[in-house]
Amino acid sequence: MASIFTKIIKGEIPCYKIAEDENFFAFLDINPNAKGHTLCVPKKEVDKIMDLDEETYMGLMAFSRKVGKAIEAAIDCNRVGITVIGLEVPHVHVHLIPLNQMMEATFQHKVALTQDEFVAIAQSISSKIG
Amino acid sequence: MASIFTKIIKGEIPCYKIAEDENFFAFLDINPNAKGHTLCVPKKEVDKIMDLDEETYMGLMAFSRKVGKAIEAAIDCNRVGITVIGLEVPHVHVHLIPLNQMMEATFQHKVALTQDEFVAIAQSISSKIG
Repeated sequence: MASIFTKIIKGEIPCYKIAEDENFFAFLDINPNAKGHTLCVPKKEVDKIMDLDEETYMGLMAFSRKVGKAIEAAIDCNRVGITVIGLEVPHVHVHLIPLNQMMEATFQHKVALTQDEFVAIAQSISSKIG
Repeated sequence: MASIFTKIIKGEIPCYKIAEDENFFAFLDINPNAKGHTLCVPKKEVDKIMDLDEETYMGLMAFSRKVGKAIEAAIDCNRVGITVIGLEVPHVHVHLIPLNQMMEATFQHKVALTQDEFVAIAQSISSKIG
């Protein structure tokens, strides 16, 4: 069965899209650690990051760098952090999280945003993609 | 002033070393989230991951993949996760963390290990480097 991320990529589930190319897709995490928390996903559905073939892994990291720089340009933060866990959804995803304090990197505290806020954040980050 | 990681790389502060090449260095985190928690560091001292030049960033990610695969081969875990935060030490470092449960990815729970255990873990991971 297709993962929730494959359904998002295919447009079967809506998302706040940030960027897309032939192999990768970025959208806002709807249960964010911080404003601007974004997920970068390979279109190829693989469970574990270390199981990605080298080309897809390197492509995902390059794509995440491009999106991460756009987040830093759009969102007021000390820096963008990177996290890959993957224990819940079996489809590799890179969390890009705007960080000002450690709490935002722990996945223990979440931020509530309105639909309008999500739309504005996605547009703002998207406009900074190089 | 040199960062604590530069001092480790230069051998001025001891570490449980995992791997080293011309540009990158890997060693065990001495305050680990889980057994086998490893740090991968560029020898070039830069504070923020998104400020690394593209070549160093991509090299660090390739090096981290090699070390991550070795950790998965050496340590009993569901998968190896990746985290870059960097709010404490201003020298880019990639956390590679053997994960079995979410708790190990939160940086809120630490594991105590003896010196002998650190040595054995480092040797075990190191022996799996491809």
